[in-house]
Amino acid sequence: MKKTRTLTVDLGERSYPIFIGEGLLQTSDLLAPYIHGQQVLVVTNETIAPLYLQFLMKSLSCYQAESVILPDGEIYKNLETLNTIFDALLAKKHNRTTTLIALGGGVIGDMTGFAAACYQRGINFIQIPTTLLAQVDSSVGGKTAVNHPHGKNMIGAFYQPQCVIADTTTLNTLDDRQLRAGLAEVIKYGLIADAEFFCWLEANIHLLLSRDSAALAFAIGRSCENKAKVVSQDERESGVRAILNLGHTFGHAIETFQSYRDWLHGEAVAAGMVMAAELSQLMGWVSEDDVRRIRELLAHCDLPVSAPKAMNSETFLELMSIDKKVLDGSLRLVLLKSIGHAVVTANFDQSLLIDLLKRPESVFKV
Amino acid sequence: MKKTRTLTVDLGERSYPIFIGEGLLQTSDLLAPYIHGQQVLVVTNETIAPLYLQFLMKSLSCYQAESVILPDGEIYKNLETLNTIFDALLAKKHNRTTTLIALGGGVIGDMTGFAAACYQRGINFIQIPTTLLAQVDSSVGGKTAVNHPHGKNMIGAFYQPQCVIADTTTLNTLDDRQLRAGLAEVIKYGLIADAEFFCWLEANIHLLLSRDSAALAFAIGRSCENKAKVVSQDERESGVRAILNLGHTFGHAIETFQSYRDWLHGEAVAAGMVMAAELSQLMGWVSEDDVRRIRELLAHCDLPVSAPKAMNSETFLELMSIDKKVLDGSLRLVLLKSIGHAVVTANFDQSLLIDLLKRPESVFKV
Repeated sequence: MKKTRTLTVDLGERSYPIFIGEGLLQTSDLLAPYIHGQQVLVVTNETIAPLYLQFLMKSLSCYQAESVILPDGEIYKNLETLNTIFDALLAKKHNRTTTLIALGGGVIGDMTGFAAACYQRGINFIQIPTTLLAQVDSSVGGKTAVNHPHGKNMIGAFYQPQCVIADTTTLNTLDDRQLRAGLAEVIKYGLIADAEFFCWLEANIHLLLSRDSAALAFAIGRSCENKAKVVSQDERESGVRAILNLGHTFGHAIETFQSYRDWLHGEAVAAGMVMAAELSQLMGWVSEDDVRRIRELLAHCDLPVSAPKAMNSETFLELMSIDKKVLDGSLRLVLLKSIGHAVVTANFDQSLLIDLLKRPESVFKV
Repeated sequence: MKKTRTLTVDLGERSYPIFIGEGLLQTSDLLAPYIHGQQVLVVTNETIAPLYLQFLMKSLSCYQAESVILPDGEIYKNLETLNTIFDALLAKKHNRTTTLIALGGGVIGDMTGFAAACYQRGINFIQIPTTLLAQVDSSVGGKTAVNHPHGKNMIGAFYQPQCVIADTTTLNTLDDRQLRAGLAEVIKYGLIADAEFFCWLEANIHLLLSRDSAALAFAIGRSCENKAKVVSQDERESGVRAILNLGHTFGHAIETFQSYRDWLHGEAVAAGMVMAAELSQLMGWVSEDDVRRIRELLAHCDLPVSAPKAMNSETFLELMSIDKKVLDGSLRLVLLKSIGHAVVTANFDQSLLIDLLKRPESVFKV
């Protein structure tokens, strides 16, 4: 008997469940309570469509169900691709009671959620994340967006799904690099708020890397618990939610610098988390040993642990100056007080940041 | 002494004031309480910029204030033009505490509001409407959107401004056709919920057409009162708010058919209101005399009172089938029970609608 775990993102009237389990994509009665009209549009990409689209469409046979297949990759997460979702909705006369279903990774989830936020000023949507990164992070919490050439996730909305369905079976087809990128976000939860989980990860990372299903299910559940807790406290990121962005200010700068073409989001975040840890060490907040543990755990996953060669300190400062956490001109960063305790702060020494950005470059190759 | 009138749109923590009066654009201390950060971007168009932009920028001299000037017209109300607002924000490194100011008519207000809803997932904005239509209707209530080639206002958000500043002096430079288009929305309020106001309009329309400032101020205030009342009851149009769309289902079909190039929004709404009244008469709800009064009042403003020649019933039905009020395939229309009493209903006789759409065409020329 397969076990489905259910968590709740507690947001009053916008609360919703996260279902985690094996084979959920083929459990058609799971979706029905969350589809309120007669119409459904599934948004997916070229990689996922041949693998899972037919299973999903089969379980939607009693609706007017269509699909739109987008190209795969972060470089397509823009207004132009978003418009192809609107084209599909209008071509098939989808009305305000329609439901969008995001079937894919973080890019598909972010774009589908944003399309749902905007189409006819807001329609329902459901997240079916198929990558580890999307299952532990991007599908939960209602952050939706597209990128702008000058900044990652600059155009978007806070918009919550009706439910999240994380079918862990889909991870079987995930390529290794994507799995490892997802582990960066898993490790993030240990770093920001869950020291016990970080220790568990140090002890069990080999199980996750070898795709042990029990270990993956535990890590996904624990990550979602952590995320749901923070999101419930601060849906629109007016305060504590920003800690979920550990490593992301550095990471987004890297992604923008690379025009979203080279490193995966999780890879950029991995390097960014090491940089945040190093700055925290320069500030005297965490020990050299803690930074070593962080670096080793990420390196064990073959994730980058420093910035790309081609980026210098000026480039970093320029790209970080449009970060969404900038308030009235002053940059705020998520730094570590210890493993398991992150803070959002503008009170760091700018010269130490510059020292950090001038350190020798990453040798990470993709 | 100039008199400023203040109304409130009552939406709990999203409540905001509407200021109506002469010369408000040059009253710099009016804006200050509604700008919370150090940065401001004014969005306006080629027509309005030479007339009013410098006055506004002068009153913003203590901020990092920039402006972006868009081309004028409904055909530019699309995702592409929207992106130029994002470009301007990012080029000048505007952060989450920035404020957008919409200086212009309905197109500028709708696009600026939608840009504010999306930029960094939501920033503050202020409406400074400079057309009659924007002052009485589109700047109030938080509906923001851009058009899609297949449907008017199909991509947008409900997003409320910090305040609305209606400087009636700006109507002095409004061209006559724009003034008359605005009167269509003024007359709408009489029709949907305010029979007394409709009678006042019948008696005083000549004063409005001759731009009598006291009459205009009264009509703007009364229209905003009506709108604020409905919006306060139903911010996200789950019910009663839809009555504000009297004439709009027909009107949007006309605008979409014309690719947003020929009739102004208010003109299309005028024809649409007559069509709604005629269908209401065919249903036996309003008298022939009431329809005659409606048609005469609009015709007195040189507004169109029937559909454009080139549109046939098939075109209408096709274009209306993607209206935002369609629910699970069935078209809902705003119809009149009497002058001053509109209802939203799917219970109309489809064959009567088709009869109506087959009537001889408009002879309105622009």
